[in-house]
Amino acid sequence: MNRTLLFVGAGARTDSWINAFAEVAPEIDFQPYEPGQDVSDVPYCLAWKAPPGIWPAMKNLKIIFGIGAGVDRLLADSSLPRDVPLVRMVEPELTRGMVEYVLWQCLFHHRKVWELEAAQSCSTWRPHSYPAPWDRTIGIMGLGELGSAAAERLVEFGFTVRGWSRTPKSLPKVESFFGADQLPAFLSKTEILVCLLPLTADTRGILNAALFAQLPRRASIINAARGGHLVEADLSAAMASGQINAATLDVFETEPLPPEHPFWSTERLYITPHNASITDPRSAAWRIAKQIAKFEAGEGLDHVVDCARGY
Amino acid sequence: MNRTLLFVGAGARTDSWINAFAEVAPEIDFQPYEPGQDVSDVPYCLAWKAPPGIWPAMKNLKIIFGIGAGVDRLLADSSLPRDVPLVRMVEPELTRGMVEYVLWQCLFHHRKVWELEAAQSCSTWRPHSYPAPWDRTIGIMGLGELGSAAAERLVEFGFTVRGWSRTPKSLPKVESFFGADQLPAFLSKTEILVCLLPLTADTRGILNAALFAQLPRRASIINAARGGHLVEADLSAAMASGQINAATLDVFETEPLPPEHPFWSTERLYITPHNASITDPRSAAWRIAKQIAKFEAGEGLDHVVDCARGY
Repeated sequence: MNRTLLFVGAGARTDSWINAFAEVAPEIDFQPYEPGQDVSDVPYCLAWKAPPGIWPAMKNLKIIFGIGAGVDRLLADSSLPRDVPLVRMVEPELTRGMVEYVLWQCLFHHRKVWELEAAQSCSTWRPHSYPAPWDRTIGIMGLGELGSAAAERLVEFGFTVRGWSRTPKSLPKVESFFGADQLPAFLSKTEILVCLLPLTADTRGILNAALFAQLPRRASIINAARGGHLVEADLSAAMASGQINAATLDVFETEPLPPEHPFWSTERLYITPHNASITDPRSAAWRIAKQIAKFEAGEGLDHVVDCARGY
Repeated sequence: MNRTLLFVGAGARTDSWINAFAEVAPEIDFQPYEPGQDVSDVPYCLAWKAPPGIWPAMKNLKIIFGIGAGVDRLLADSSLPRDVPLVRMVEPELTRGMVEYVLWQCLFHHRKVWELEAAQSCSTWRPHSYPAPWDRTIGIMGLGELGSAAAERLVEFGFTVRGWSRTPKSLPKVESFFGADQLPAFLSKTEILVCLLPLTADTRGILNAALFAQLPRRASIINAARGGHLVEADLSAAMASGQINAATLDVFETEPLPPEHPFWSTERLYITPHNASITDPRSAAWRIAKQIAKFEAGEGLDHVVDCARGY
């Protein structure tokens, strides 16, 4: 049985993936791709950034595993075979890390850290108030694995949580909205907007001037999804006007964010370097091996991407 | 039945207390103290900062309610009658707010915000890593109402949590230490130290150079208890040497913290103005009224301070 898993993950931590498979899934023949390698018999591929032209050369490919929660980068490659199942990374550690990030950043914006920073920078003790969490409305765009887990945790903290997604979703104690028609109602009371959407043709540029204008004045934006969701110039303008008061961004149209980008020096705009949450290789290796075993046993795969839908 | 509750709460939000009692406990005759007022018949007192000499004048006092979780300030007044029950504030909102603060600050230190700030201040995209929460040990000093609630929530987030208290305590998934003998073992692996102790003769100045030296190098300190727990000059020295890498302080020996205090401009020292958590007047009024009703029915009071113990 050929159990080669070709790793096309330039930029990812190759060594930790090698070690992870050796440790938890030694039955998998994990091979980091080397230029010029004959890939015609490779059945399985774990992909982050694929080298140009590699897909047509994998003539016997049976499953493509994405390395992260989003597969927009893979789908953007028109040579990606559409008849081979593409599996999204759904991995508890990735979800847990994202929930940690969202909670941390929601508390950061809820407690208005910029007011504390301003007081400290001028050595002034200023009374500082913040609402009870039920008087703070947090809106989550995207109620998939990550968004629904984050919503659940925010509810536990007592926040008033609303969610928006493409199709109707029902989550305990979360006021849910769906589709373009209900987006304005969702936005109208959202004080802290968290974007955890998949990046698709429908969601590209969704965080734009028109959306910002529908939020309550002085809202906060947290984008932990993809840089392509945000129209960066629109955020700069909305922050300059005060419509958006503060933002935390983990993702950008161009990464690394170039040194000359105005975001670096925008007040109350906080940058994290696309590390909100990271796939854990050991946990992922165990899951990938399990999916390969299911596939070999003729069973169905989990978390297969609907290419038309885009996630 | 005389149900006068005298409010000696200078500096607290008097109006919100008046409104709270009017709304949820109208049977209580809530009276903000006015200088010169005859207090000889007052049976109940809600106290924050008591005017000098007021205690001996309250000749018929039956219960003293503290307005916050700590009663050190009240006990410091030698004229406070030791034969009248002193009741600590145990109020779910106060606890919830403190848990929110501790989580926020632990995530802040866990994710090393100072590294993000440094990268942003020089417009540089720097890879930024942080451990899994189980590879991060948080130690909580004080396992009372606040400390045990915070420990429970940190455990839910996956952190490795240890606790230290005066007497043995047992909490699920928390490695517990107690007494002076076990303090070094508790400290030896604590990377983020959270102080939620009551301020007593035993705990005054407990956060000092000797304690800092027993922590792993580059530990973080979060003090949300009382300024008196911390020897401020020792923290400055420990941060200058790098033994303590970062700190968040909500409380200070002198509050408001004077403008000339070196803490304002200490790098990686974050200041919140004694507002980590705030007693909710409505919730507190309801609980105080309930305790008064129990007292009138001849039942025992909850959360009575042991004056010898100091909390």
